Amino acid sequence: MPTSAHLEFDTSRDRVAQRVHHLRSSPVRDLFSAATRPDVISLSGGMPDVSLIPHDAIRAAADAVLEDDALRAVALQYGSTDGAIGMKKVVCSLMRDIGVRCTTDQVFLTSGAQQALALIAKTFLDPGDIVITEGPTYLTALSAFNGYEPEVITIPFDDEGMRMDLLEETLERIGKGNPRLKFIYTIPNFQNPGGVTMSDARRRRLIELVQEYKVMLIEDDPYGRLRYEGGHQIPLKAMDSRVVYLGTISKTMAPGLRVGWIVAPRHVLAKINLVKQGTDLCCSSFDQALVEHYFTDTPWEKVLQGFISVYGKRRDAMLAALEEYFPKEATWTHPEGGFFVWVTLPEYVDTGSMLAEALEAGVTYVPGDSFYPAGSGLGKNSMRINFSFESPENITEAIRRLSEVIEERLELYRVFIEAGAIKPDRAPANEHSTQ
Amino acid sequence: MPTSAHLEFDTSRDRVAQRVHHLRSSPVRDLFSAATRPDVISLSGGMPDVSLIPHDAIRAAADAVLEDDALRAVALQYGSTDGAIGMKKVVCSLMRDIGVRCTTDQVFLTSGAQQALALIAKTFLDPGDIVITEGPTYLTALSAFNGYEPEVITIPFDDEGMRMDLLEETLERIGKGNPRLKFIYTIPNFQNPGGVTMSDARRRRLIELVQEYKVMLIEDDPYGRLRYEGGHQIPLKAMDSRVVYLGTISKTMAPGLRVGWIVAPRHVLAKINLVKQGTDLCCSSFDQALVEHYFTDTPWEKVLQGFISVYGKRRDAMLAALEEYFPKEATWTHPEGGFFVWVTLPEYVDTGSMLAEALEAGVTYVPGDSFYPAGSGLGKNSMRINFSFESPENITEAIRRLSEVIEERLELYRVFIEAGAIKPDRAPANEHSTQ
Repeated sequence: MPTSAHLEFDTSRDRVAQRVHHLRSSPVRDLFSAATRPDVISLSGGMPDVSLIPHDAIRAAADAVLEDDALRAVALQYGSTDGAIGMKKVVCSLMRDIGVRCTTDQVFLTSGAQQALALIAKTFLDPGDIVITEGPTYLTALSAFNGYEPEVITIPFDDEGMRMDLLEETLERIGKGNPRLKFIYTIPNFQNPGGVTMSDARRRRLIELVQEYKVMLIEDDPYGRLRYEGGHQIPLKAMDSRVVYLGTISKTMAPGLRVGWIVAPRHVLAKINLVKQGTDLCCSSFDQALVEHYFTDTPWEKVLQGFISVYGKRRDAMLAALEEYFPKEATWTHPEGGFFVWVTLPEYVDTGSMLAEALEAGVTYVPGDSFYPAGSGLGKNSMRINFSFESPENITEAIRRLSEVIEERLELYRVFIEAGAIKPDRAPANEHSTQ
Repeated sequence: MPTSAHLEFDTSRDRVAQRVHHLRSSPVRDLFSAATRPDVISLSGGMPDVSLIPHDAIRAAADAVLEDDALRAVALQYGSTDGAIGMKKVVCSLMRDIGVRCTTDQVFLTSGAQQALALIAKTFLDPGDIVITEGPTYLTALSAFNGYEPEVITIPFDDEGMRMDLLEETLERIGKGNPRLKFIYTIPNFQNPGGVTMSDARRRRLIELVQEYKVMLIEDDPYGRLRYEGGHQIPLKAMDSRVVYLGTISKTMAPGLRVGWIVAPRHVLAKINLVKQGTDLCCSSFDQALVEHYFTDTPWEKVLQGFISVYGKRRDAMLAALEEYFPKEATWTHPEGGFFVWVTLPEYVDTGSMLAEALEAGVTYVPGDSFYPAGSGLGKNSMRINFSFESPENITEAIRRLSEVIEERLELYRVFIEAGAIKPDRAPANEHSTQ
């Protein structure tokens, strides 16, 4: 024991900063432990299946770094704030693959794309500033933004992605040149949690609106290369070079190595650089070196094809099981890629309170309200389910279990509906703002 | 080229958050490129000499992770927000070595100790809150704090570390129970940039003051195990379990792997956990696994002894060269460990403007004012010089070059002093506050 032990009182509660009161714990993180119970099939995570990466690919990349004295010394030393030039070149090459040309001075490396979100929020958001996102949106993007106390306005999507008519209405209301409006954040490909992809027409309209309202556009694209059907969509970044593009190796390689990137105009990166210095000095030099060599010295595209093939089959299994087992009252999205399906249940079903029953039945998902700003009241009757991590057999079984849990809930309500006590129709989700 | 190219105007300047105006670029980071010129001997960095780590030690740690399917899968996957249990156990063992007993639930892993500083600042600091540090102090701790706009009050040190009489005066002035006072930040061992170590008596007095004023104490200890003479000092954390202790493998192993830690009461860690989720999801699982195995499967203590032996000789070379070459008007600290010596010149010498001449002469250092809050006006006649990275011969040559640059400056002023135009005596540095 310490030489002067004390009872542990929570003396820090009164001392936390104002911004901490705007944060809530991520339910995905909280489900982490439950999801490791062997009898539970997890549809709640967002994990790639790293067991698909051949042992010798990682080994070859590690060997390239470890066996060369100069490379090893760099990998073990502090790096520059904006990242290693070798890994930046890899990013330029990966960007060229998807139709975006950039130079290394337009690339800024981060500790996963999550850090990019946090740095952008810290660089640009004052309390009360406005951020526009899809609703639902990536829940930890909301965490990154909420740390700086903005007002987050969410715009619903349909099968073609974010609704541009509703976005335009919102922009009009906010007003041109409103200094509080800081940026629009979108995940155009296989959105998390929606699974939907923004159509080319919507992308072009979004760029027009962004140019008209002179607002910064953040394009987050973790899943873009995991497409199981349909053709590649032109990135927003390729339509306007001022777009701030976020990428990561978390889904094309492995998230345990923290390498993400921002491709943006140099003046934006200069400000983010200033903020990053005090945040963590530099990212892992070792991770950057290993990832650089993975993408230069190994047949990584073959591994990526393996991901696509396996995940595609898992998606098919999920969509087939939904079709087979889910009640007629449920609707869901049909993702052409990525990791997630978004399920909408009748609005009288609360997926938050239903989660305990699902866990009991041996399946987990993420309740939909997690993907909206806290207090918005939206998403309570929806859920995000993941198909990237479990086998097709497990996915089918998980959907079967989940359908029984839902059926039980619906059974209960059908009685009320038949008696006229609950209206069966759902109000369409609409724009919502909350701080 | 992008399909719609635009001239690059800095449209983001007006959009940055208020907090960004409080940040300045780190001169150490900015000197990074100059310091790589082959004719320049750098005394400006703070880098460990990672070439001292035997190739087979890193190789053995990497093999342990890569050759085991289960370990490899964990190393490539997302980890938990607070870090991997295996690495936490290593931290508990390292803490026990220095006299602190803790359990894994009191350990929180971070991407280097720098991230720990940034997370603590984000968790606890509102604009206008008060932070007390040594003056001078670690410059990137100032960057981490400044991102959240506190008032930083600096307390001078002498050969026994932070002046407790001046700290007490400051605490009295701030007043007991003042909610704006958030924490005291200290580097008790081989302070950066001072090189001084807090005496046992001062440590005990500091703990008394912290208990009396009920203020959080942050103990940052990156260099504690790099002692070249004298006996181990009891950590503040061992004197009071409520102390928030920061550690890192950056100096005992390698900073290219980003693994640092916070040892603190659980209620403090719970709040930091909430903040970290949105910051980067998790640290590098790969780095944590590799570092865990380095500290369990390799003779790391022998490597550490190697660091101590080599750095000790470099420190001796620096102190001897200072004695031989530096003018009588200069004073400097005599570190028993760590990386740095702090040099004080007559107050009419501006080390900031002198840096260009030093670069010309083929040597770099960090001007002293970088280690004080911006605008304080303090430290202008001092400098930090590093002895961990260059050979004894290079250090001797660098100090010789530097002495000539200083001599030239002094020569100029001696004429004025003899003519009575400048007073030769220096005012003692004193407490200073700036926002």
